[in-house]
Amino acid sequence: MRGDPFELGGRTFASRLMTGTGKFTDYGVMREALAASGSQIVTVAIRRVELKAPGHGGLLDVLDWDRLQLLPNTAGCRTAAEAVRVARLARAATGTKWIKLEVIPDARYLLPDPVGTLAAAQELAADGFTVLPYVQPDAVLARALEGVGCAAVMPLASPIGSGKGLRTPDLLKTVLDGAAVPVVVDAGLGVPSDAAQALELGAGAVLVNTAIAEARDPVGMGHAFALGVQAGRAAFLAGRMGVREHASPSSPPGGVPRLPDPEVPV
Amino acid sequence: MRGDPFELGGRTFASRLMTGTGKFTDYGVMREALAASGSQIVTVAIRRVELKAPGHGGLLDVLDWDRLQLLPNTAGCRTAAEAVRVARLARAATGTKWIKLEVIPDARYLLPDPVGTLAAAQELAADGFTVLPYVQPDAVLARALEGVGCAAVMPLASPIGSGKGLRTPDLLKTVLDGAAVPVVVDAGLGVPSDAAQALELGAGAVLVNTAIAEARDPVGMGHAFALGVQAGRAAFLAGRMGVREHASPSSPPGGVPRLPDPEVPV
Amino acid sequence: MRGDPFELGGRTFASRLMTGTGKFTDYGVMREALAASGSQIVTVAIRRVELKAPGHGGLLDVLDWDRLQLLPNTAGCRTAAEAVRVARLARAATGTKWIKLEVIPDARYLLPDPVGTLAAAQELAADGFTVLPYVQPDAVLARALEGVGCAAVMPLASPIGSGKGLRTPDLLKTVLDGAAVPVVVDAGLGVPSDAAQALELGAGAVLVNTAIAEARDPVGMGHAFALGVQAGRAAFLAGRMGVREHASPSSPPGGVPRLPDPEVPV
Amino acid sequence: MRGDPFELGGRTFASRLMTGTGKFTDYGVMREALAASGSQIVTVAIRRVELKAPGHGGLLDVLDWDRLQLLPNTAGCRTAAEAVRVARLARAATGTKWIKLEVIPDARYLLPDPVGTLAAAQELAADGFTVLPYVQPDAVLARALEGVGCAAVMPLASPIGSGKGLRTPDLLKTVLDGAAVPVVVDAGLGVPSDAAQALELGAGAVLVNTAIAEARDPVGMGHAFALGVQAGRAAFLAGRMGVREHASPSSPPGGVPRLPDPEVPV
Repeated sequence: MRGDPFELGGRTFASRLMTGTGKFTDYGVMREALAASGSQIVTVAIRRVELKAPGHGGLLDVLDWDRLQLLPNTAGCRTAAEAVRVARLARAATGTKWIKLEVIPDARYLLPDPVGTLAAAQELAADGFTVLPYVQPDAVLARALEGVGCAAVMPLASPIGSGKGLRTPDLLKTVLDGAAVPVVVDAGLGVPSDAAQALELGAGAVLVNTAIAEARDPVGMGHAFALGVQAGRAAFLAGRMGVREHASPSSPPGGVPRLPDPEVPV
Repeated sequence: MRGDPFELGGRTFASRLMTGTGKFTDYGVMREALAASGSQIVTVAIRRVELKAPGHGGLLDVLDWDRLQLLPNTAGCRTAAEAVRVARLARAATGTKWIKLEVIPDARYLLPDPVGTLAAAQELAADGFTVLPYVQPDAVLARALEGVGCAAVMPLASPIGSGKGLRTPDLLKTVLDGAAVPVVVDAGLGVPSDAAQALELGAGAVLVNTAIAEARDPVGMGHAFALGVQAGRAAFLAGRMGVREHASPSSPPGGVPRLPDPEVPV
Repeated sequence: MRGDPFELGGRTFASRLMTGTGKFTDYGVMREALAASGSQIVTVAIRRVELKAPGHGGLLDVLDWDRLQLLPNTAGCRTAAEAVRVARLARAATGTKWIKLEVIPDARYLLPDPVGTLAAAQELAADGFTVLPYVQPDAVLARALEGVGCAAVMPLASPIGSGKGLRTPDLLKTVLDGAAVPVVVDAGLGVPSDAAQALELGAGAVLVNTAIAEARDPVGMGHAFALGVQAGRAAFLAGRMGVREHASPSSPPGGVPRLPDPEVPV
Repeated sequence: MRGDPFELGGRTFASRLMTGTGKFTDYGVMREALAASGSQIVTVAIRRVELKAPGHGGLLDVLDWDRLQLLPNTAGCRTAAEAVRVARLARAATGTKWIKLEVIPDARYLLPDPVGTLAAAQELAADGFTVLPYVQPDAVLARALEGVGCAAVMPLASPIGSGKGLRTPDLLKTVLDGAAVPVVVDAGLGVPSDAAQALELGAGAVLVNTAIAEARDPVGMGHAFALGVQAGRAAFLAGRMGVREHASPSSPPGGVPRLPDPEVPV
């Protein structure tokens, strides 16, 4: 998609597929899958890295950050204060001011706290961070997050890691409509068609983790998502056909009279 | 998808995107859009060409049939007998034995007749045709069509030209499950994500016409569908993740204790 | 719904909920659940009764057929010939000419054979039966079945016993549109809202078995389905609102100026 | 549903169908439709009544509030402060401390502000109001609203007045799961099956306005919704069957051998 760069946080990217690093069981596979995906923005649970949580130890050493935008995230933070603290820790440790903000008090559904997220986003944006908050598909909250200076909003498609796909297209449309910053659909995408659908509706990008990491062939799936995202974006730019309630033939149904066919007798 | 050719009717194709030629208002745009789509199998309403119906006159002269598989179709035929007659006319006129069989008695929804389709398919297959019948997503009928020698079955996604997408995924799965011939999803696909979804479920290919012809930019949309089909096929081969009812974090939620962070005070 | 009787096969019924007798493990519970459902048309697998299959022995003796229309069915028949034979056996054994025609060659999905069903329906209708064929939601087949004299058509909502609900509303609408005989949605309904939805779309009735038999409280669920069917029918008669893409307030949004409220200071 | 009262705000109701009074063009029809619905809790836009907005003048005089619980709402309020002010005005004017809290900054989609709603709810609950806030289906926000003392939470099904039905069942389930106060599904329900579905999933009640007011026959539709709500609640109490991916016959498919039928020759 030459001539259609993805602009985010003052930078320009060729790829509209962000990826995550959790759930991979093998760093070699992860590295290869992320390369196949073409992703240029990769999120890492900074607290888990620090704590050397299973599957996170040494994670930062594995990828080539000269070519990738590191997007530290605040996974595991239950309150705004925790998230702000971890964001600052991430900046101190990694040197990037980008932060994927997750304020998730709920252990079962891993749903974000709208009020805590807004409070933390405001504080971090004022402190110079490039803030990408993870949220429900709530258009009013999204506007408020734009208002406090977020670089994007990241509404969920369905619960994290569920692979259910885009279960709230109506609400997503309300978020997309009139959004002043890129909308990045995050969480729940299971297959490339889910990603394509998000882009077709106007999302600026998507973030995928589990769907690649848990595929039978993560490298193949990384490539598949790259294609899906390109397909969706290309379709968005090309302008989809309108939906019709009923069928529409390619020429008038009356166009086939019973002509004689002398040369081809039945 | 090197090493993953699409085999149909004794031939091998690189592309899994079939296209149609109706609905285009400009042959130059059509030619360019089909080129952008990478499609190698192109269907033409043979009767409308013969009759020089609006938008069909001279259609056969426009495309480069040395590089494309011509797939004449029996659009406009209401009975098995008409369809058989038009198929033979098509073979006589074009030299190809491939036929997309449409027996459509119903003018409003353009839905196929299962009984007439089976009868015509049997007669044409016995007569040496490579028969691709357009059908509802009916697994029992699909088995019967295989039984009489069809080269593929082409279940609809939603009404022709509606752009509603895959509205019967459950029934499509029953058709796909255990199919001995390729299943080509035909009719109703509106955006590349619809095509990707069909391939992800195991369809061998899709056929798209209106969604490309009626896009604001048909050439861009042709390319978008090419990517969508590749994405869906790549995902099918890579093996999708399982769907979870609930969220699943990338590491145990308990993994983020409230540690002191002396170097990064909030 | 006084004044809105359900007419079928020359008879008139107050209830639009047909029920099945399979899947019940206790005849006492079955009798009570069917009573709670208000159902007046009850289907029985005649072959299984004859064979005293598990859960079917003595079934015909349990219910009060003076108050119920017995609807023998041809469950278990894989071909038209078998179904015709079992239908005649049913008539001989029970005295009723009503028959729910099932021609199901497929053991996994239990999907009906369109061609065999049409052939058997034609033969049975010509022989004086009141034929209710179980079919896929195929509008062309439905028209053909009307044409050979069927008293109704019974398209499936989703696979038998799956409880998935109405998974093909688009195709069902094509069947309903212009149907000359009642359309009875059969198979796959899981909850009363599924039944209500079918009636709202214009179905004449529904048939429910597993959803009642396998509920935690079959008697309560029988009553729930009775209410759901009445709700759906009442809504159909009352004429639903149109669907809007966007929100619509109950009065102009500009209607609430910032007036002074001296008597209620905040 | 004797023995299954709906408890809300310290009162007990037989009906789980709340209704609205906007959109009706004729007070006589409204009165009759609400009677047919059996609704015992009726919401009124208090500000519009005060302002005598079109269709709201004299509204409070039309209904019999001795038999109905008046639920004033803050429709038209864009901020928490406005909503608090209007709530107090409503209490002063009507004597009830019940309030349906709407803080809706967004004129197009009429979506609620989560942060403003929480702030207003906290203030009103502390002031002794029985607060029922209108919200997006956000489980974390719902928990917070419970925490500040709300009597219920009212997540939307789809945009107000759209009639699209329950478009976010996954998110609604997260709200329902573990809710400590009744969940009342509000906005967007178009037909009784939508209402039944909400109750089946565990909602305590629903609120319906446009779907009744804009039906061709509002009185008939009021009755239809009464039945739908009862159906859904009865099904919830009866415990629905599990969903199966595939079909399930009512007895083993092998149960129909090809027996001789000497008495019924075909």
